[in-house]
Amino acid sequence: MVEEIVVIEGDGIGQEVVPAAIDVLEAIEPEFEFVEADAGDATKAETGAALPDATYELAANADATLFGAAGETAAEVILPLREAVGSFVNVRPAKAYPGVDALRPETDVVFLRENTEGVYSGHEDRLSDDLSTLTRVVTSSASRELAEFACEYVMEGRGPANGPESGFTVAHKANVMRETDGRFREEVLAVAEERGIDADEELMDAFATKLPLDPTQYGTIVCPNLAGDVLSDLAAGLVGGLGLLPSANIGHENALFEPVHGTAPDIAGEGVANPTAAILSAAMLVEYLGHQDEAAAIRSAVESVLADGPRTGDLGGDATTEGVTAAIIERL
Amino acid sequence: MVEEIVVIEGDGIGQEVVPAAIDVLEAIEPEFEFVEADAGDATKAETGAALPDATYELAANADATLFGAAGETAAEVILPLREAVGSFVNVRPAKAYPGVDALRPETDVVFLRENTEGVYSGHEDRLSDDLSTLTRVVTSSASRELAEFACEYVMEGRGPANGPESGFTVAHKANVMRETDGRFREEVLAVAEERGIDADEELMDAFATKLPLDPTQYGTIVCPNLAGDVLSDLAAGLVGGLGLLPSANIGHENALFEPVHGTAPDIAGEGVANPTAAILSAAMLVEYLGHQDEAAAIRSAVESVLADGPRTGDLGGDATTEGVTAAIIERL
Ligand SMILES: CC(C)[C@H](C(=O)O)[C@@H](O)C(=O)O
Ligand SMILES: CC(C)[C@H](C(=O)O)[C@@H](O)C(=O)O
Repeated sequence: MVEEIVVIEGDGIGQEVVPAAIDVLEAIEPEFEFVEADAGDATKAETGAALPDATYELAANADATLFGAAGETAAEVILPLREAVGSFVNVRPAKAYPGVDALRPETDVVFLRENTEGVYSGHEDRLSDDLSTLTRVVTSSASRELAEFACEYVMEGRGPANGPESGFTVAHKANVMRETDGRFREEVLAVAEERGIDADEELMDAFATKLPLDPTQYGTIVCPNLAGDVLSDLAAGLVGGLGLLPSANIGHENALFEPVHGTAPDIAGEGVANPTAAILSAAMLVEYLGHQDEAAAIRSAVESVLADGPRTGDLGGDATTEGVTAAIIERL
Repeated sequence: MVEEIVVIEGDGIGQEVVPAAIDVLEAIEPEFEFVEADAGDATKAETGAALPDATYELAANADATLFGAAGETAAEVILPLREAVGSFVNVRPAKAYPGVDALRPETDVVFLRENTEGVYSGHEDRLSDDLSTLTRVVTSSASRELAEFACEYVMEGRGPANGPESGFTVAHKANVMRETDGRFREEVLAVAEERGIDADEELMDAFATKLPLDPTQYGTIVCPNLAGDVLSDLAAGLVGGLGLLPSANIGHENALFEPVHGTAPDIAGEGVANPTAAILSAAMLVEYLGHQDEAAAIRSAVESVLADGPRTGDLGGDATTEGVTAAIIERL
């Protein structure tokens, strides 16, 4: 059975890097069926909805979705899409690659970010002219589901070599959010204990100081939704920026893959965007669908091109998106 | 009238660095009256309360308070103390000093952190065996009060030279927390506009990527409570750690000063803790009380010693707390 992949380019350089990633996917086995769908600022301008129902439905029923980027409407697009695929964990690797300028080249971390609740649960109220509130939600079930994923992840040897030996670090703010992050922390540590996994913990503010000071202390990091958002973006700053970072939103029967970068309006339309993050996101997709060897092949082609192949302007080169993509395909 | 300063050493190296800071304060004019008070882990073990009512009352009625550090009970001590002094803003400078190893020596930022609400408002509920919630609070009044302070701060030329020219950057997550951070963002930008101050804005996750990539883009940063906690700790990682960073909790008629570091149990009791953060916190206290020249004198003595004077183990030296303090006093 041919696997169906929904492809949402979105806005800006999404329209350049997603086609590049598809070119790479077309160069490997197996053959996928690609179904295009719309979302983003331009879609909203045309149809009134940043994420049309049809796109939501396609993503919800696909084998996997590859998304590019959206502009002003990013939150309106990505948050419902994560829900459409039933994603409970956002997997965000941040690794410095040989040949790429990085503030901390020894960084090799993966954030496993809770992907459904925390401050993202969407319950906000304007209670008076002066006062607004947001209800931050933490459940044991979501915390445990994330922790189970983290344990499997580490047990399968998918985590980076750095960090607590065959374990993970939980980052939270349970000294202030005692009940909510207290619940999160307790459940994650309990699952780790049940599964025989070593788990360290760190307050998220202390983590933000310690990661730049010595990133090799950390490998796999498990955290609530907003903590994962901010701390993984911090790690991006240590490996040279968002330009190369892929991400995966994993659910039980579906998943969504997206580069961490945005629409890059300054260079959009010029054919010079770096396709690496989108191509590495496609590699995560291929791995998710069970094609480990092909995922590894894409990754090593990307790493080889980063080391000595053509590079786009963000990495100090003058190659085009097409040039880099062709080089990656050649080295597959 | 002699100003009354409440002194709370707390736990661990708080008991070494606070006396060092008092030695410095005793070496300058004017004369202060120091009143000692207890708080922290040891106080809790003895009295059952990490922050005894008597300490709360003393801080509430002082001209200013100097606090050291607390261990496990840090949140139980520091959050009520901030309330006791009616603090609405936490001022957190993070500056790399000549002579100190820093990942980004060009960093010179000041965070103005909202100090009363956000996720710190303390409303949490255990709604079921599975579900806990926290009510995140944002008011226009607290947001505007912070923004007024930020405008004065910048207009008086107290902000660092880096960053938006004679302005500040607002960091928030209003794309997700639309109502609460939306209110915060809107009020802060409105006050800046009313006062004729340039204000940039940045999503807090993007800020976490961009600060390590190029800290010189930022000078004064205005943010909600938890954002300020995490982002200022990130800046600490860029200037070499928490060891040198002071902070001020400012209210309308009272204030509380504390080094950003903790109790450092590994070196507590050995007389080798770095007193710099406590002494710089004392400088902020002196400045708050209106003694600008004396504050400047303390700061330049500290900088001079950091550049070529004796240094403690954390900075690669072998001086004692006393040795460093004596050198600073000598250079006043
Ligand atoms: C666009 C925004 C809603 C999103 C988030 O906060 O999750 C983005 O920052 C990300 O991390 O993918
Ligand atoms: C101890 C803790 C409650 C406190 C905070 O979160 O504000 C600390 O991290 C700080 O930043 O002073």
